[in-house]
Amino acid sequence: MSRSKDPHGRDALQRLLAPRSIALVGASLTPGSLGGRTLKNLEGFPGSVYPVNAKYQALGRWRCYPSVEGLPEPPDCVLLAVGKSVVEPALAACAARGAGGAVVFASGFAETGRTEDVVAQERLLAIARAGGMRLVGPNSAGFANLLIDARCGFPEFPAAPPPRRGMIGLVTQSGALGLALSQAAEHGAAFSHVLTCGNSCDIDVADYVAYLAEQAECGAIALAYEGLSDPARLSVAAQRAQRNGKHVVVCKLGLSEVGASTARRHTGADAGCVRSFRALCLKSGMVAVERIETLVETASFLAKAPKPGEAAGVAVASGSGGTAILAADAAARSGVTLPTPGGQTLARLAAALPGFAAAANPCDASAQVAADPALMKAVAEALLSDPAYGALVVPWGKAYRSDNIAFLGEAALRFGKPVCLVWMSQWLEGPGAREAEESPGLALFRSLDACFAALDAWHRSGRPRSQPIARSASFQ
Amino acid sequence: MSRSKDPHGRDALQRLLAPRSIALVGASLTPGSLGGRTLKNLEGFPGSVYPVNAKYQALGRWRCYPSVEGLPEPPDCVLLAVGKSVVEPALAACAARGAGGAVVFASGFAETGRTEDVVAQERLLAIARAGGMRLVGPNSAGFANLLIDARCGFPEFPAAPPPRRGMIGLVTQSGALGLALSQAAEHGAAFSHVLTCGNSCDIDVADYVAYLAEQAECGAIALAYEGLSDPARLSVAAQRAQRNGKHVVVCKLGLSEVGASTARRHTGADAGCVRSFRALCLKSGMVAVERIETLVETASFLAKAPKPGEAAGVAVASGSGGTAILAADAAARSGVTLPTPGGQTLARLAAALPGFAAAANPCDASAQVAADPALMKAVAEALLSDPAYGALVVPWGKAYRSDNIAFLGEAALRFGKPVCLVWMSQWLEGPGAREAEESPGLALFRSLDACFAALDAWHRSGRPRSQPIARSASFQ
Repeated sequence: MSRSKDPHGRDALQRLLAPRSIALVGASLTPGSLGGRTLKNLEGFPGSVYPVNAKYQALGRWRCYPSVEGLPEPPDCVLLAVGKSVVEPALAACAARGAGGAVVFASGFAETGRTEDVVAQERLLAIARAGGMRLVGPNSAGFANLLIDARCGFPEFPAAPPPRRGMIGLVTQSGALGLALSQAAEHGAAFSHVLTCGNSCDIDVADYVAYLAEQAECGAIALAYEGLSDPARLSVAAQRAQRNGKHVVVCKLGLSEVGASTARRHTGADAGCVRSFRALCLKSGMVAVERIETLVETASFLAKAPKPGEAAGVAVASGSGGTAILAADAAARSGVTLPTPGGQTLARLAAALPGFAAAANPCDASAQVAADPALMKAVAEALLSDPAYGALVVPWGKAYRSDNIAFLGEAALRFGKPVCLVWMSQWLEGPGAREAEESPGLALFRSLDACFAALDAWHRSGRPRSQPIARSASFQ
Repeated sequence: MSRSKDPHGRDALQRLLAPRSIALVGASLTPGSLGGRTLKNLEGFPGSVYPVNAKYQALGRWRCYPSVEGLPEPPDCVLLAVGKSVVEPALAACAARGAGGAVVFASGFAETGRTEDVVAQERLLAIARAGGMRLVGPNSAGFANLLIDARCGFPEFPAAPPPRRGMIGLVTQSGALGLALSQAAEHGAAFSHVLTCGNSCDIDVADYVAYLAEQAECGAIALAYEGLSDPARLSVAAQRAQRNGKHVVVCKLGLSEVGASTARRHTGADAGCVRSFRALCLKSGMVAVERIETLVETASFLAKAPKPGEAAGVAVASGSGGTAILAADAAARSGVTLPTPGGQTLARLAAALPGFAAAANPCDASAQVAADPALMKAVAEALLSDPAYGALVVPWGKAYRSDNIAFLGEAALRFGKPVCLVWMSQWLEGPGAREAEESPGLALFRSLDACFAALDAWHRSGRPRSQPIARSASFQ
């Protein structure tokens, strides 16, 4: 019953993760129940939905079936919203009916550490294998393929985003963490998939990454996980993603001692050590972030960014001296250089800036940028034109709507260089933030340190086999 | 013309910073102009407002005066919204009329580094000194005393908060940074004052801190600055604040080489070196944060927190294994210990938790906390009752309104221990965030690392002269 050496990838997972029919065992209309929450998630699914519950003839607008055996067709995906004690026969029924795969929500398997629970989980895997089914879980919240409105789980997954370039594929073990991170969609982040796997007895995060590696709509993969039975599979998957032009950004949980023992209780995972995680990042080229709150913004940046050019220098244009200084400090912490502008650029800056402002990098264009939008435009154009700069960082002081946000996004695409807008306002979702997040050319960060660490990783991604971990990370 | 050895404090600054009358030289109704923006800010001021502009008889509902000389009384505070070339005679007129102090918005003084500009700034100071006036600026955005609705500057300062315990006094050199940070008010943070000082030729951040040290409504001081002519004055001010029960949280700008030269161009400040900043923090007991985005939340926590007790241990209660692991990792990075619960606590936890969840610290109460609010309450009560724990951290996964937020705030006050709610959702201002921010018992963080660093600093503040800089900071 050992795991396949290579991660599964698209062919093995397509039927389960992009289903045309979904059955829900334990379906109900009871608000708050697993069955009720999951059924609500299926309301927008355009394929066939088969609620299964012997207690009902119908549930809402759906006919309800007494058993999996009685379904009109073999379901591509079965969601088992039933208690631990009946998971085994329910899964066997799915196998017998020819299901493509199943998701087991129930907890109380290998994560308890008790022998009988570990053995029970192994029996689930055996049933799935024998029936030729893929299995997500147990102890999983399920997954959402937002490209086809398939919300195969009980959390309130985000709404499907309007199609756009550079969507994020999110992969986590923890369902709650997947939900917490995917709520970035509420302020404009775009997710193609939110995939959680719980105890990972069959499908683990490596399989999910390998699947996303072959999804054209996914521009970058954001991954948070605690443990893997075979880290080499993740390495294969991450390299496959990169060959397809997708960065994998990873936040590893459980690198501390207490964190590792908490992980064992959570999904039964062995968190491994810092050294093995570093080795895995080095081998696979994944970009590691230390703080979970920077995972989505880093992935979103890498999903939007063009391939890095030769120039490692970064330019900073701000409307405030204070944020310009902070940017310089953060660049230094991340090892990013802010070269002095070349002669031609200096001349262009001097012509654009008010008399008391200095042509320099960082370039503080002064508070006049608020009264005179053309000023920031001229400064940004001058800096983006300079071949010494591979990217532009704009610390954005006040939350307010400005057509400079659209301009900066357009200039980023025109110059083929990333422009990072760093939101310095503590009005975190104030006016302008959504416009920046939704701009195909702009990356929005809420931390200068996260921005420069991402720029550093982006630039080094052009040079394979270099150190993938942020220089400022404590586990470097 | 050397600065007084001690910072000024309440008596010297009260007339300027808590004015009963405000004159605005260069007042206008032109939208976007300094004079227009500042006049708008004075709309809610309950004292006397005297617009000064020879071009107008009246501006809006106010009578407009042709000159400072012609004002009906000596103004407590004069705002000079005029160009650099006329600042000097305008300031002299203020001195002649017996003003309490003045704010100079104009740029182009010592920050340019040109001798003539440095000398011009010295002349301003000489005029103020000779006239017995305090001077804010030049190159300053002004200040806001929100306790009395006095918005003496051109930025869009926040609205006055409803009176509450533990308001934050914010002090910055950069006006734009002060505005950016004070926009936290938009999601429920409460500021008593927003004080910015620009080039600081007379009043600098040390004076502001000394003033706030004697303001009862201010529970903690958040300070971001780039340079000081005499760091010892800040040390005196910070110690005065702490004697009055107010922590000072500081983010130092310009600790990198490029940052320091940017600072010289910004306000003419000498940023000093890392070593002298560390020594200053050690001597003064200020709590240093490295990332500007954690300044306000750290100050807000310290404004609300009770005095630390003996117990250095921290308990973690979560509704998700993933966030529990992340909390353990962040605690380890900050050097905070998460002791195992004592026997009695273990028994209480075991009685409350579902069968598959383990009584431990971090305590993962499982996804059932969403369906059963009483579960988190029981777990939090059990952990707060344990004398080994001085504080409770609750990673909050999903953005949603829950009466558990009010309950946790109430329990914090009842047990006399801080409860930190760490917002793990990337829906940064989603439902529930404002409720947590406004709760007098709860501290809201958006970063686990910031939370544990703050808890570490809080606990060590009970032991004077210990290391005040977060153990995870790169400048430690």
